[in-house]
Amino acid sequence: MSIRQDAIDKITPLDEASMRQSRENWNVIAKPLGSLGLLEDAVTRICGIQGTARPSLQKRAVAVFCGDHGVAGNGVTQSPQSVTVAVAQNMAAGKAAVNALASIAGCDVLVIDAGIAEPVDYYRIQNRKVAKGTNDFTQGPAMTAREMEQALEAGVVTAQQLKREGYTLLAAGEMGVGNTTSASAMAAVLLQKPPEEVTGRGSGLSDEGLIRKIAAVGQAIKINKDMFDTPFGVLQALGGHEIAAMTGFFIGSASCGLPCLIDGVISSVSALAAIQIAPRVKDYLFASHVSSEPAGKLLVEALGLNPYIDCRMRLGEGGGAVMAMSLIDHAMAVYNHSASFLESSIKQYEQY
Amino acid sequence: MSIRQDAIDKITPLDEASMRQSRENWNVIAKPLGSLGLLEDAVTRICGIQGTARPSLQKRAVAVFCGDHGVAGNGVTQSPQSVTVAVAQNMAAGKAAVNALASIAGCDVLVIDAGIAEPVDYYRIQNRKVAKGTNDFTQGPAMTAREMEQALEAGVVTAQQLKREGYTLLAAGEMGVGNTTSASAMAAVLLQKPPEEVTGRGSGLSDEGLIRKIAAVGQAIKINKDMFDTPFGVLQALGGHEIAAMTGFFIGSASCGLPCLIDGVISSVSALAAIQIAPRVKDYLFASHVSSEPAGKLLVEALGLNPYIDCRMRLGEGGGAVMAMSLIDHAMAVYNHSASFLESSIKQYEQY
Repeated sequence: MSIRQDAIDKITPLDEASMRQSRENWNVIAKPLGSLGLLEDAVTRICGIQGTARPSLQKRAVAVFCGDHGVAGNGVTQSPQSVTVAVAQNMAAGKAAVNALASIAGCDVLVIDAGIAEPVDYYRIQNRKVAKGTNDFTQGPAMTAREMEQALEAGVVTAQQLKREGYTLLAAGEMGVGNTTSASAMAAVLLQKPPEEVTGRGSGLSDEGLIRKIAAVGQAIKINKDMFDTPFGVLQALGGHEIAAMTGFFIGSASCGLPCLIDGVISSVSALAAIQIAPRVKDYLFASHVSSEPAGKLLVEALGLNPYIDCRMRLGEGGGAVMAMSLIDHAMAVYNHSASFLESSIKQYEQY
Repeated sequence: MSIRQDAIDKITPLDEASMRQSRENWNVIAKPLGSLGLLEDAVTRICGIQGTARPSLQKRAVAVFCGDHGVAGNGVTQSPQSVTVAVAQNMAAGKAAVNALASIAGCDVLVIDAGIAEPVDYYRIQNRKVAKGTNDFTQGPAMTAREMEQALEAGVVTAQQLKREGYTLLAAGEMGVGNTTSASAMAAVLLQKPPEEVTGRGSGLSDEGLIRKIAAVGQAIKINKDMFDTPFGVLQALGGHEIAAMTGFFIGSASCGLPCLIDGVISSVSALAAIQIAPRVKDYLFASHVSSEPAGKLLVEALGLNPYIDCRMRLGEGGGAVMAMSLIDHAMAVYNHSASFLESSIKQYEQY
């Protein structure tokens, strides 16, 4: 059996007793019932995932999967492909935006080479390279079926490794020049929307660049149209190594019983594929923010998850997911202080 | 001249040079231009407020203004009036939800009695009591003109006091049984919307309670209809001591050159009044989250500010404002690390 299928088979339903206890704990806290909104639900779901009404989120990591895209040569991005490896090294060295964000949330940053085109020789970057970038998907499938499976497995084993290392809260991020083109193509197929509705400027494309990008997305969908019967086919034809790896990472997180935060459009596309492959994964996933990319809102709606932050961000790198950790910390602080709340003299708020 | 008018006269425009420098600093950070969205704008505006491109937000406080409402006797809220003083004491003792939230953001909690009905005798609650609750505004104006002015002044001097104490980032919060009824009435008038569109369940009202609340809002608007020519009249007729105090606090924050975060519907109504009284106040205000109360979204739109969080919260107490401080901390961490970014070898992202 494949590593991926084995992981899927191990995903268990959430623990209802812990969630029930969690709701009871919330409801004795002296504040209007449900007044922390989505964040109360988040804590309760984490209780269900960890199987305890007193969960711990002490050790957290964002796994940033990196990969290159053959389509990047077609004028769909303003950055040369070499930026992928440069940013990966920068993240691994602790010098990128995500590192600064992660420091505030007490979160470790793990950088994984899932398919960077250029040679990578830096001990802080974990080598799970499937291939030196994908093929240009306007000419045919981005990956072979075997490459896609390897990328999925890279994600699964990354989650398993973090589980062994004692992590209790995960997030997924990515870096890959050209990967918003790939994500837009996948979004168009998975959401059944025309390319122009789900394709944006990525890291800052010009008007002409955007027209080229929409055309590339349309061409990729046209040439690969016979492969969209399953989420695996969509991933193989239109995805990327880092995108499939994130799909595997979401599956692996669920399989290991770890809550995992989704970041922006690219990880949302990966998450949507993960849920289509294994619907139970959804119980373990948390949307963090709404990306300003046009597909951002559509994707979180399709996921059926409610993001916490709406700051019109489009950083990638797992940045929004890491920020959401701080909001969960806020909710956890209230939740964990419920013992002291109980000592206070205020009668519970009740329905009038 | 009144304390309030004197504060208004001292509000200065933001420092353009610092904001220009801030934008330049953002743009040399190795990440897609503008990719932190609203949070980049927030940091830049804070630079304009502090008059430096290297701002400090080390010392922060949330001022929680408390007051009672005569309308609370009309079955518009599920909590007895005594909950106001109980929650105020709880917050002052460090045991309420806002204290747990504030601890995560490194924020001090200051509790102010602007008009609590019951006797308050607790040294941690600052006494700026204007009166023992407002009058029932379904029978006439909630306050006298003099009471409203005193409440405004209470807010102004609170901001001035925090400025003297070295605070660099402020937030406003409130507690007052019945104050969503007051806020809904003010929102209906200020936004020119019918009561049913801006009136919600507050801390958890039943269907019957909601019908009574909408009726009370309609009656208050009807009986006080000749007082709505100025924002002062709206505040006096439909507001509360804590609501007017927050209006003064927003004016005072701007006057003292301090950025100030708005919380939910009640502080949004106060902020809207503040901006109508003194439009320049807006430059110093930051929306934090969209309340799940029906007026929440309408009010932030009317303010012309963009909230960062959308968690369907309705806690009050300044809870959402305090949480937004953590998001600003995340953005500041990236901003302040720009020096190290400059050392990295990545060419700036450029328009393709």
